[in-house]
Amino acid sequence: MSHNSFGQLLRFTSWGESHGEEIGCVLDGVPPRISLSEDDIQPFLDKRRPGLNSFTTQRCESDLVRIVSGVFEGRSTGAPLSMIIKNEDMRSKDYSDIRDKYRPSHADYTYDVKYGFRDYRGGGRSSARETAMRVAGGAVARKILLSQMSDSFRVRGAMVSMGGDAVGCWDDSVIAGNDFFCCDGAAVKRWSERLLAVRKSGDSLGGVIEVRASGVMGGLGAPLYGRLDSDIASAMMSIPAVKGVEIGSGFSSAGFLGSENADEMRMVDDEVSFLSNHAGGILGGISNGDEIIVRFAVKPTSSILSSRKSVDKFGKDVDIETRGRHDPCVGIRAVPIGEAMLCLVLADHFLRHRGQCGS
Amino acid sequence: MSHNSFGQLLRFTSWGESHGEEIGCVLDGVPPRISLSEDDIQPFLDKRRPGLNSFTTQRCESDLVRIVSGVFEGRSTGAPLSMIIKNEDMRSKDYSDIRDKYRPSHADYTYDVKYGFRDYRGGGRSSARETAMRVAGGAVARKILLSQMSDSFRVRGAMVSMGGDAVGCWDDSVIAGNDFFCCDGAAVKRWSERLLAVRKSGDSLGGVIEVRASGVMGGLGAPLYGRLDSDIASAMMSIPAVKGVEIGSGFSSAGFLGSENADEMRMVDDEVSFLSNHAGGILGGISNGDEIIVRFAVKPTSSILSSRKSVDKFGKDVDIETRGRHDPCVGIRAVPIGEAMLCLVLADHFLRHRGQCGS
Amino acid sequence: MSHNSFGQLLRFTSWGESHGEEIGCVLDGVPPRISLSEDDIQPFLDKRRPGLNSFTTQRCESDLVRIVSGVFEGRSTGAPLSMIIKNEDMRSKDYSDIRDKYRPSHADYTYDVKYGFRDYRGGGRSSARETAMRVAGGAVARKILLSQMSDSFRVRGAMVSMGGDAVGCWDDSVIAGNDFFCCDGAAVKRWSERLLAVRKSGDSLGGVIEVRASGVMGGLGAPLYGRLDSDIASAMMSIPAVKGVEIGSGFSSAGFLGSENADEMRMVDDEVSFLSNHAGGILGGISNGDEIIVRFAVKPTSSILSSRKSVDKFGKDVDIETRGRHDPCVGIRAVPIGEAMLCLVLADHFLRHRGQCGS
Amino acid sequence: MSHNSFGQLLRFTSWGESHGEEIGCVLDGVPPRISLSEDDIQPFLDKRRPGLNSFTTQRCESDLVRIVSGVFEGRSTGAPLSMIIKNEDMRSKDYSDIRDKYRPSHADYTYDVKYGFRDYRGGGRSSARETAMRVAGGAVARKILLSQMSDSFRVRGAMVSMGGDAVGCWDDSVIAGNDFFCCDGAAVKRWSERLLAVRKSGDSLGGVIEVRASGVMGGLGAPLYGRLDSDIASAMMSIPAVKGVEIGSGFSSAGFLGSENADEMRMVDDEVSFLSNHAGGILGGISNGDEIIVRFAVKPTSSILSSRKSVDKFGKDVDIETRGRHDPCVGIRAVPIGEAMLCLVLADHFLRHRGQCGS
Repeated sequence: MSHNSFGQLLRFTSWGESHGEEIGCVLDGVPPRISLSEDDIQPFLDKRRPGLNSFTTQRCESDLVRIVSGVFEGRSTGAPLSMIIKNEDMRSKDYSDIRDKYRPSHADYTYDVKYGFRDYRGGGRSSARETAMRVAGGAVARKILLSQMSDSFRVRGAMVSMGGDAVGCWDDSVIAGNDFFCCDGAAVKRWSERLLAVRKSGDSLGGVIEVRASGVMGGLGAPLYGRLDSDIASAMMSIPAVKGVEIGSGFSSAGFLGSENADEMRMVDDEVSFLSNHAGGILGGISNGDEIIVRFAVKPTSSILSSRKSVDKFGKDVDIETRGRHDPCVGIRAVPIGEAMLCLVLADHFLRHRGQCGS
Repeated sequence: MSHNSFGQLLRFTSWGESHGEEIGCVLDGVPPRISLSEDDIQPFLDKRRPGLNSFTTQRCESDLVRIVSGVFEGRSTGAPLSMIIKNEDMRSKDYSDIRDKYRPSHADYTYDVKYGFRDYRGGGRSSARETAMRVAGGAVARKILLSQMSDSFRVRGAMVSMGGDAVGCWDDSVIAGNDFFCCDGAAVKRWSERLLAVRKSGDSLGGVIEVRASGVMGGLGAPLYGRLDSDIASAMMSIPAVKGVEIGSGFSSAGFLGSENADEMRMVDDEVSFLSNHAGGILGGISNGDEIIVRFAVKPTSSILSSRKSVDKFGKDVDIETRGRHDPCVGIRAVPIGEAMLCLVLADHFLRHRGQCGS
Repeated sequence: MSHNSFGQLLRFTSWGESHGEEIGCVLDGVPPRISLSEDDIQPFLDKRRPGLNSFTTQRCESDLVRIVSGVFEGRSTGAPLSMIIKNEDMRSKDYSDIRDKYRPSHADYTYDVKYGFRDYRGGGRSSARETAMRVAGGAVARKILLSQMSDSFRVRGAMVSMGGDAVGCWDDSVIAGNDFFCCDGAAVKRWSERLLAVRKSGDSLGGVIEVRASGVMGGLGAPLYGRLDSDIASAMMSIPAVKGVEIGSGFSSAGFLGSENADEMRMVDDEVSFLSNHAGGILGGISNGDEIIVRFAVKPTSSILSSRKSVDKFGKDVDIETRGRHDPCVGIRAVPIGEAMLCLVLADHFLRHRGQCGS
Repeated sequence: MSHNSFGQLLRFTSWGESHGEEIGCVLDGVPPRISLSEDDIQPFLDKRRPGLNSFTTQRCESDLVRIVSGVFEGRSTGAPLSMIIKNEDMRSKDYSDIRDKYRPSHADYTYDVKYGFRDYRGGGRSSARETAMRVAGGAVARKILLSQMSDSFRVRGAMVSMGGDAVGCWDDSVIAGNDFFCCDGAAVKRWSERLLAVRKSGDSLGGVIEVRASGVMGGLGAPLYGRLDSDIASAMMSIPAVKGVEIGSGFSSAGFLGSENADEMRMVDDEVSFLSNHAGGILGGISNGDEIIVRFAVKPTSSILSSRKSVDKFGKDVDIETRGRHDPCVGIRAVPIGEAMLCLVLADHFLRHRGQCGS
């Protein structure tokens, strides 16, 4: 990963700031002749789009993506894909008051330490606004994978815990029908009430997101630094506000006995089958054909209304409360972002594997 | 990260297999004129060395490192550093019996799926033997950092949980004096008894490692894909058997209120000071000058004596028990490895920061 | 170099096709706090702009560049710079007749062989239209260098040979005042007459471009694969239609005696001074402080009016003449492109050097 | 290309100095299951080996290569290949006298400027000794290509000009039978006499090398920065003492009319056939299936016996003559090196192409 790119053969580079004119990305290395248009991408952006319900920021963006290069007559040409989204609803004035002050838990202070000054409007480059482009890139990666993996290939995510309150089950049919991408109908009601209350109090909540990819071929990754799990960890940790990543049983594995943790294998219908999936579909850095399962922790939104102690860029103690429009739980919109990142990593690894091993 | 390298300006590449003649690494991009000899490296290798006590594998390796290039008259020349260690105590015959069988939770099956055949002796390339080179590389990275960070710069790790039994405190003075790199004297006794019992039963335990870096300058990292936390996650997840990584409060953050999680700031002695450190020293992907805190989960050793269900490469169901010499808890030796990886990431980011920002 | 990027710490990525809506680039790794606006870039684009005189294509583009990200209040922020130019004067119909036919010496055939189909309008991704973005990127790189190199730092290029007719001298004051970026007043007249005649006959000419950088600090580059000369060769050869690159005395060196070729050194005013410059300012892959001199050969424009033998994508023999608007000598506009590429390479190497060596 | 690596999917990293204990390389990304042993590599090293005849240095090295990792039971495993050669015949004392003095045309001065001090013994890292590892890597790349390209695949090089005296023809059968890798029997005699005389006078000559690859599939490369010609230029210019690179008609192209330079095409036996090959097998950065032709210029050996003006590291004027053992024409041994570099670039591009485009 260089400053603003990730991936090797499928290389994603993003640009743009929260309050700039436009944001965009370049996706390089897309295989040629993939059928592709804005219609393949927009539905995923619509899932991440702000302003959809009372649990996300009221910043109102239509997030209409334009493919500006790399597609001709409805198919990818092998040339880099440039995708651009216009920023529409900036209220830079809301931010004038944090120009010189550092919001706790935000990147304000560290950006200034590193670069010596910053575009403070809406967080500038450090804003989660950039994640729209990840979702666009992920939608293209998903199309690449759909053309190469088995028919059963699917990537889907859900929020599995909010503010410490975990779901009791994973029910695919529930996810699309609620404001949290929650996979447990019973939890939806509890979360709804809690988040409304938290929001009213000017505070915020964190969450845990789980993303699952099924139908992924075995053999993606490498034993050491080109590991699939290592690249997934990097990708998820690069999402703003993420503080932890785990694969399969993750941190729970550390408490198991070896005899409990080992996923036994048997031949079923002439195919290798795993009797459990503590590994989360990855062994020794390489996909094993079982479902890939990733979880990541999103901290509570740092922009809160209560006054916090801080300092300003002149080295003075100040108190600050963050106004402006914010998500009471940024974890919600992290669901489509997590799916996108997993798709980008998998597609890159598919191309890398095909390069070295030939199929 | 390419197949067998990581880092950008400080680029580490390793090679070698568990039962090959030698293992080695190339560390490219080392700044010139750093005082350097084998004596700077050997003590860290000795911490990771197998066969030291009854809680690690009885494979007996002296792990004497040789610097073969890149150093002249006791100082780095700016040329790539090649470091080599001889393998001494291989017993390849122990493995003949897993030539065609896949050990559950090992990379045997996935290696075969990917590459079509494998060096099965001791796990071949997928063996944790490779981690000796990480420790060697990390020792050099630490020297680079010592020459560039403040006098208070230190990186130290400890095992903070074994088999689900967590430490109650972090006492630096305890770590070196026990067989677990445990930071809590009270836990040492409990762990000792338990691991002996588990080992006797032919089973194994996992663990959680924490690594802390203090005295790190602010400004290392970047807001998006050149993030310090993202590269740390990638580095830790690339250690064999690691299934989860978290920074600062990590997964716990997801259960906090925003008002609890925000690390407030105040000026203390004319310096910016954080009143708490849920962030683990990294905000918006960039170091904030506070202590960097990373934890990672190591699954229990996959090599266990009890018989497990598996399949062989001919597609037949088999039962397998893993003989040979193994660690009952690989988490122990992961402590110096985790320190090494953090040093490598920090040194790379220091050089990258100096490249772009000039100091 | 990956598919559509080059550079390491200063990383340039371009996108866009000849007849797409827009073309653009992302320049990542720009140091922060460099004063920067479109006014720093536009003059260089104006030098490369088509339609300026009778010796370049009549395609009429205003080539107004927009900086869309990475600059705030007139200074670079350290975030990626996105620059975009609108395509205005496309006449895609001119190309309908080469949709299925391969123009000799063009990338038509190879693009189809590689990707299976192509955007044939104006050459698509293989068009020299993309070089506008290189010029934009190069202008930013020049600003970075101006802020870091000595006051005498300058990069300037000229066409030193056209259709085999070489200049007799290098006179800086002549270059800007003629349509060829020719550095020899006497040659201008000869070239003018010849190119008009060649153009009238529907044919084209090649040329040799020389680019010189003076005031470059010593120490940029590395002895082996991070060599300055190697990266310059790569950069120049990546310009469309370039078939050769040489540094200093280049191919002539191969005919010299060692005693003739060695650039002797003496102390002059307490500074190391070279008594000759066959090396072209680079020794062992590293800049020596003397003027960097690069030459590259541009083949004659492949689009010519006379009928040529070719084949079509159905495997039939065809005859083809290339209509449309074309430069009779693409070498002319390669002058500002060559300058831009040299600036990009030097700025990247400056950052890389500062990263490893610290100044 | 980073400091000491090149290639993307097939990534070559070298280490070692002229007078170190060993030199070596790591070749990462080798496809699995390629039949491979030292016997595939040694013949190419023997071609480059010093001390073979009176026209190369009398330093006597057996250059026996050891494959230390990445091969199991005679086949590549997909893991990184480590190859090591022992240095045997160092006479470091010969160099004590240039410890503080800079040899003109050598990297002595620039290495010191960049890194602040240097391993002066035999040129240290800047020595052509490192090229042995390129030859070893190239031999492996050739094996990869032989397994993937058509049966007619061949890469062969020759010296086509020495000291300005060019060959009159290319006769494959002559190349192996003379001390110059010369492809023209008539030139051999002339060159022999001249080089003996030059050598006796303590001087040296340069040369031009041509390397040809036939049987290469079309489609390798990319239109812009992943260009095949750009990577070839970079690879050749990274060979010590090379000052120019050209492809196909190269610099001559710049003197042609467009109508002369365009390689016309016709269907022959149902295959696309080019009626000439000014392009040198590469169009728009992508191989066209015709023979790839590359030439590079090697400057005369910089180590000569006559006294030259120079300076020392204390800023004093000195005179220096270079003793020690040296090639009177380093161009000779550059022939197998040029072949190796072309093989490495082609194999890397084959893997990259297969990754993106799937065949």
